[in-house]
Amino acid sequence: MSQYTAKLIVIGDELLTGKIKDANTIEIARWLESQGFNLKQVLLSGDNPKELKDAISDAWNSADLVLTTGGLGPTPDDVTKATLGQVFQGELGENLIAREMAINNYARIGQEWSPQKNSYHLIPEGMEPIENPQGLAPGLSKVATDQGKLFMAAPGVPRELKAMMAGPFLSLLDKVFPQRENDNQVLTLRSFGVPEEKIFFELMPNLWEELSKEGKVSSLPQILGVDIHITFKGTKKDLAAKKEKWQQQLSASPMGNHIWAYEAIALEEYVVREAAKKKLTISLAESCTGGLVAHRLTNVSGSSSVFKGSIVAYANEVKTQILAVKEDTLIKYGAVSIETAREMALGAQSVTQSDLAISLSGIAGPGGGSPEKPVGTVCIGECFPSGEAEAKLYKFRGDRDYLKLRFSEMALHRLREGILRS
Amino acid sequence: MSQYTAKLIVIGDELLTGKIKDANTIEIARWLESQGFNLKQVLLSGDNPKELKDAISDAWNSADLVLTTGGLGPTPDDVTKATLGQVFQGELGENLIAREMAINNYARIGQEWSPQKNSYHLIPEGMEPIENPQGLAPGLSKVATDQGKLFMAAPGVPRELKAMMAGPFLSLLDKVFPQRENDNQVLTLRSFGVPEEKIFFELMPNLWEELSKEGKVSSLPQILGVDIHITFKGTKKDLAAKKEKWQQQLSASPMGNHIWAYEAIALEEYVVREAAKKKLTISLAESCTGGLVAHRLTNVSGSSSVFKGSIVAYANEVKTQILAVKEDTLIKYGAVSIETAREMALGAQSVTQSDLAISLSGIAGPGGGSPEKPVGTVCIGECFPSGEAEAKLYKFRGDRDYLKLRFSEMALHRLREGILRS
Repeated sequence: MSQYTAKLIVIGDELLTGKIKDANTIEIARWLESQGFNLKQVLLSGDNPKELKDAISDAWNSADLVLTTGGLGPTPDDVTKATLGQVFQGELGENLIAREMAINNYARIGQEWSPQKNSYHLIPEGMEPIENPQGLAPGLSKVATDQGKLFMAAPGVPRELKAMMAGPFLSLLDKVFPQRENDNQVLTLRSFGVPEEKIFFELMPNLWEELSKEGKVSSLPQILGVDIHITFKGTKKDLAAKKEKWQQQLSASPMGNHIWAYEAIALEEYVVREAAKKKLTISLAESCTGGLVAHRLTNVSGSSSVFKGSIVAYANEVKTQILAVKEDTLIKYGAVSIETAREMALGAQSVTQSDLAISLSGIAGPGGGSPEKPVGTVCIGECFPSGEAEAKLYKFRGDRDYLKLRFSEMALHRLREGILRS
Repeated sequence: MSQYTAKLIVIGDELLTGKIKDANTIEIARWLESQGFNLKQVLLSGDNPKELKDAISDAWNSADLVLTTGGLGPTPDDVTKATLGQVFQGELGENLIAREMAINNYARIGQEWSPQKNSYHLIPEGMEPIENPQGLAPGLSKVATDQGKLFMAAPGVPRELKAMMAGPFLSLLDKVFPQRENDNQVLTLRSFGVPEEKIFFELMPNLWEELSKEGKVSSLPQILGVDIHITFKGTKKDLAAKKEKWQQQLSASPMGNHIWAYEAIALEEYVVREAAKKKLTISLAESCTGGLVAHRLTNVSGSSSVFKGSIVAYANEVKTQILAVKEDTLIKYGAVSIETAREMALGAQSVTQSDLAISLSGIAGPGGGSPEKPVGTVCIGECFPSGEAEAKLYKFRGDRDYLKLRFSEMALHRLREGILRS
């Protein structure tokens, strides 16, 4: 396999002190994978010129493509440009293209650029500026076509980086690596309801070995369930054939009921797609998840064709007023009960006139738990097009954030199953 | 500054191919910062025994504390344990404490452990197992008290890691680094409404220099606004004194109206806290944000004391049915209009009987834009305890996810201002 190698250096003290989360690595990793590069390593480094210089030099000596993000801004802690001058031995000087870019970038936000504002017009000799379609500071590149090597520096702002990957970075890759191949394919099996060990040691002890004949296997536990990925060399057509083969083989296996997708699709996207296929509309009544299920569904573009809305009924008055939950039910069984969840689902269906409705009432903690209903308890109700409704109680472990996420995941799986049988 | 140094290695092919996001680094970085360590570098490495061995050896030779996460699970792609055996030159063998831990961990989830299930009882000679209070696989440590060095390996599952940092890891730090000091303090100024450059080059050209006299300054653009951090050596009391000093000095400056917090507090937490102080209740009517504002507010534990609920009115029928938005208004001005937003806010206030209500109606894209109301347009309405209501139109840039986030941030800032003047 003669794949080009890549290394990424993510720059910023704020990453090492935990002030911000690194949001760029996953985007770059996916982009490199799609462009046929083998990302060997990611290094998170501080804004320390000495360490940064060593890290960039090492990467430049050991990979075909080196990318950095961060440290190109206007404040004194932005040291990337000066450091690059040292690595590539070029003095900082005015670059007319960089100057033009700065002027244009400022014009886009209705402002005038001047050298008093910042030093976006200065770049190390021997390097070239890169267009930044979504931001102000230009990127930097070092094109070493003779060595078949490329260096690119982008700002750390995620949306600026994304826009650069979609355009200017791509042109540079085409220039330096015109022969690159990308024939990596990934077959993804998404399962629900059984832990990793049960899959590979109990239900199907030979599965790993058999899948390994197809390519490199990896197994990744998810919020509720496990994803299995098989990476192999081939075409889209090969992927489709393998998908069909394994779908046939596994659907008749002990894993058949557990695998809900033979592709890398997000659960919320799957739900929206399947509901749209069946022309079913959806509504929600959320208490403990506080809008998270609705947020996830509406992250899917096109969700407006199936999603009518959610009543986030945090206070009991909202449950009785809007969802017509009976006071009696709340008094007799409590807000976190299958009885209340059932009435919430019925209320959501009726008030939004949706085909399906899902409700959640639970305890995300840290307070509010009791011996019978500890933190982590959730009741999920579901109401079908027939008007039938049912509710179940579940118990999960975790902190508040994680419980909200697990509750929402369980609700979306219930919704998925509800759509399939409606 | 004789601070102990730390290096972190985050292990997993899935990180380098972009299949999952690294959620652990930020938690570990914060924890190390709070424990007085200087995290020099984070390396994301694949499950490749050769490269991993080099990376761990290098880190062990150059830092006082080395941490790894990932690769301790039961599947064949989990290679961390075998690699550690090579680095620390110890053969894998049965460890009675590890065996005991595996048995106890399985008992916690009501199952019986056996060596057929996995090899959690085997660890390299010379290493010791670490309790995993939230998971099944024990961690591993190498305690080199004579060299004043410590190695710790944790599973990659974020909640397992968190539980280990809170307990077993801490005991190991105390054992090997009993003399460590942590007197790092961070003063955080959170601003809204002015970009980085305007702050440091226009409004207050001397601010950076003056703040630098207090400690190390960094500036971090946020969703809407900029955070400024000043890190210095001192006590909590010094921090309180500096906070008061700068609060006095800056509130009278051109930045006075822009700085909304002199501490590292999340916007949603600030909103919940200030509303609780004034005993004000809140409700929402969300369209384009699809529940995100409610989700953010309910991430704050204790939000139930102020937050009544949200009507996620994605479909127009829900706007008219539940929020009593007039059909006429929708026809005449459209769903994304200040008129509709105003009526949505009034509707939310009335139906939930809250003191304050915020509404959002906008276009998160990618579809649905028009020349007058492009993608990124949002109308935010607000209704005050007096019954007065107002709405404004804003325009932002970004993709669907980012627009939802920016819309929600703007709404929370409106809510923050509304609380302050109610």
